[in-house]
Amino acid sequence: MARPTPLSGFPEWLPDGRVVEQHVLDTLRRTFELHGFAGIETRAVEPLDQLLRKGETSKEVYVLRRLQEEDGDGADRSGQLGLHFDLTVPFARYVLENAGHLAFPFQRYQVQKVWRGERPQDGRFREFVQADIDVVGAGDLPYHYEVDLPLVMAEALGALRDIGVPPVRILVNNRRVAEGFYRGLGLEDVEGVLRSIDKLDKIGPEKVADLLVAETGATPEQARACLDLAAISGGDAGVVDRVRELAAAHGIASELMEQGLAELRQLIEAAAVRAPGVVVADLKIARGLDYYTGSVYETVLVGHEQLGSICSGGRYDTLASDGKQTYPGVGLSIGVSRLVSRLLSGGLVRATRGVPAAVLVAVTSDESRPASDAVATALRARGVPVEVAPTAAKFGKQIKHADRRGIPFVWFPATEDGAADQVKDIRSGEQVDAEATTWAPPAEDLWPRVVPAEA
Amino acid sequence: MARPTPLSGFPEWLPDGRVVEQHVLDTLRRTFELHGFAGIETRAVEPLDQLLRKGETSKEVYVLRRLQEEDGDGADRSGQLGLHFDLTVPFARYVLENAGHLAFPFQRYQVQKVWRGERPQDGRFREFVQADIDVVGAGDLPYHYEVDLPLVMAEALGALRDIGVPPVRILVNNRRVAEGFYRGLGLEDVEGVLRSIDKLDKIGPEKVADLLVAETGATPEQARACLDLAAISGGDAGVVDRVRELAAAHGIASELMEQGLAELRQLIEAAAVRAPGVVVADLKIARGLDYYTGSVYETVLVGHEQLGSICSGGRYDTLASDGKQTYPGVGLSIGVSRLVSRLLSGGLVRATRGVPAAVLVAVTSDESRPASDAVATALRARGVPVEVAPTAAKFGKQIKHADRRGIPFVWFPATEDGAADQVKDIRSGEQVDAEATTWAPPAEDLWPRVVPAEA
Repeated sequence: MARPTPLSGFPEWLPDGRVVEQHVLDTLRRTFELHGFAGIETRAVEPLDQLLRKGETSKEVYVLRRLQEEDGDGADRSGQLGLHFDLTVPFARYVLENAGHLAFPFQRYQVQKVWRGERPQDGRFREFVQADIDVVGAGDLPYHYEVDLPLVMAEALGALRDIGVPPVRILVNNRRVAEGFYRGLGLEDVEGVLRSIDKLDKIGPEKVADLLVAETGATPEQARACLDLAAISGGDAGVVDRVRELAAAHGIASELMEQGLAELRQLIEAAAVRAPGVVVADLKIARGLDYYTGSVYETVLVGHEQLGSICSGGRYDTLASDGKQTYPGVGLSIGVSRLVSRLLSGGLVRATRGVPAAVLVAVTSDESRPASDAVATALRARGVPVEVAPTAAKFGKQIKHADRRGIPFVWFPATEDGAADQVKDIRSGEQVDAEATTWAPPAEDLWPRVVPAEA
Repeated sequence: MARPTPLSGFPEWLPDGRVVEQHVLDTLRRTFELHGFAGIETRAVEPLDQLLRKGETSKEVYVLRRLQEEDGDGADRSGQLGLHFDLTVPFARYVLENAGHLAFPFQRYQVQKVWRGERPQDGRFREFVQADIDVVGAGDLPYHYEVDLPLVMAEALGALRDIGVPPVRILVNNRRVAEGFYRGLGLEDVEGVLRSIDKLDKIGPEKVADLLVAETGATPEQARACLDLAAISGGDAGVVDRVRELAAAHGIASELMEQGLAELRQLIEAAAVRAPGVVVADLKIARGLDYYTGSVYETVLVGHEQLGSICSGGRYDTLASDGKQTYPGVGLSIGVSRLVSRLLSGGLVRATRGVPAAVLVAVTSDESRPASDAVATALRARGVPVEVAPTAAKFGKQIKHADRRGIPFVWFPATEDGAADQVKDIRSGEQVDAEATTWAPPAEDLWPRVVPAEA
């Protein structure tokens, strides 16, 4: 087999990169669990007809076929399976399937790979890890979860600040504001307007204005008003007043908009107390997906805005429905691979080492390997990660072996009766007597850590 | 959407089952890391031609196709992707692809889902989680790793004993013993003999004897000798003597067999010291896969032998090769889903609760929700997992909400100036004054635990 080359769009990390990713995943999990979210995992596949219910995503789906399947590639889709392209569709199915066994409101987190057959580009992968939190109610779901959930994400991402992750800014909007405003203006194709506004960052306001005129039947004045709304942003409740002023200037009076503004104000005000400076109202946030009905969220890394959103989501009045019961929800999803990829490729963070072991136990001779194994066992029993040297090579070679891996300590078992074992910090060269039943490395050396790259 | 039904072969757990699985995964990870194994993760897909290099597995592979792909289902396999069916093939590819960045011997663990399009049956899934450890060398790999790795697995699985996992028995054999013995007997189709012997547990000795005669050209006497070899097992070095006696009785003198016996003896003797009673030589262990060249391992749960092996592997002289360099390895793989499925369906273990929260903070009124949020924040800052009640319902209803989830404590924020907050253990009914900056639940209630089912 010739040396294989990476598959574009399917990222993999070297061991030290995986240390970074694992640290991110552990940190997210801890925050989610502190907030009472239960971890679940769903299968990677869903029936194809379920995956295709949202027409837009059809081209992204990977379809599965058993190599020896008889029916081949027929047009019959029943029974066909595809890989999930997000964690929301499988979660909705899981809720319906297990509703009788779940206590509502049900808070869950889910960290899994998803797959999309898109053309790979910077920050866009065909296989990537998402970390989602959602709360779903049976029948109803109080508004306060729309405030709580982005703040959980702010805390989770904030917990990564000390390893060198830039601060995040969570941009929030409310679908009711946009819908009330557009309808008040006389525009009925709310979906179409949202889809056009969603392209603002990509194509700029002039082209969005053209789109609005061409595709939603807006007049140039209506298009201008939509763009004026989208231009409003800010971190305090003054935003709400500016939307009202703009609406008044266009003679818009909308109960829906007022409801949305009241919700948006509540979110902004609570966030200013619980996560100062993180949450900003941004009226251009549209989110392409049509199932959002209230708050919507996007999140940028400050200084890396061009990477796009690393954490998005919103409120959906109908996450799932079995005909009798409707399950409203609110949730956000972190693009873990996009984040980790930027941390690694941007040189923002580094792992102190790529292997777990803090200590390499040297082996003096093949015959004395059991003595080295015994030292390792004693250290491990006390929670110290240890490797034993692969061979009884010269000590210089064994030290080099540790050095190449970034293992900070080398342990030398005593070779004479009455002599003490010794342990050497190979960074400083300091070597001291030590006993495997009492010695421990400094806490900062015990496990690999993730630190800002310049540290 | 009607209520969906589970897909056969694609197991999913309810939140309390996931607590069990997560505990198993955390325990394995900790043991692997204490032994210096670095965690890696590979993409879920490999080029189809790489997956099909072992002919036997072709029918199990799931092939991927983008829904909108033009070329459809053509015969051209180049560029086609399939889901990996184990973690060994992707690991071998990862080693070749990244050899320049890895330090050898390279020890890694890998915990991921794999997919096989097999007919689902008890303990056999189409999607399941494996947890693998392997050590791979560049050019050579010392024998002692063949002793070390099963003992790491013994320790990892042993660490699950206190949650109610039955003891394990690791059955070991050495390919060289079998090959030397068969060749010494005059049987040249070693693969064929191994494949037949591998069916012993399924079809019994008589039918295996028939198979050996029919498919490997063995005489009935040769077949009998193979079965006599396969019948030898035991936990001490006496096994080696019995193999030698049997070989002598058939006039077999084989250097290869002697090398294998020396290795087997070394493994048995070391295991008797480092993990007494766990490792047993069993000469019938064949392992179907043709790439094993030295030690081979299977592992049964004592009392659940009919479940089959939950942890298997062996030594392969050529895990990977790029034409210039060969990479020998040794590794084992735990069938996590098979194990967890048995733990849950067999009622062997249970989680103390299915949600992380140890405390539900009650909400007295909608206006005082911020006070409840503040209590939650203070408790979480000290590492206590907390939920805040979804609504300001009557306290009785809020307590019921906690009870349904298995949350042991309900916190009542003070409603009058000067009054103290109170916390109630809803199991005992005991209610005491408490401060969020100092109170903590008993350690055994802090996080969900996994315990033997009868506990």
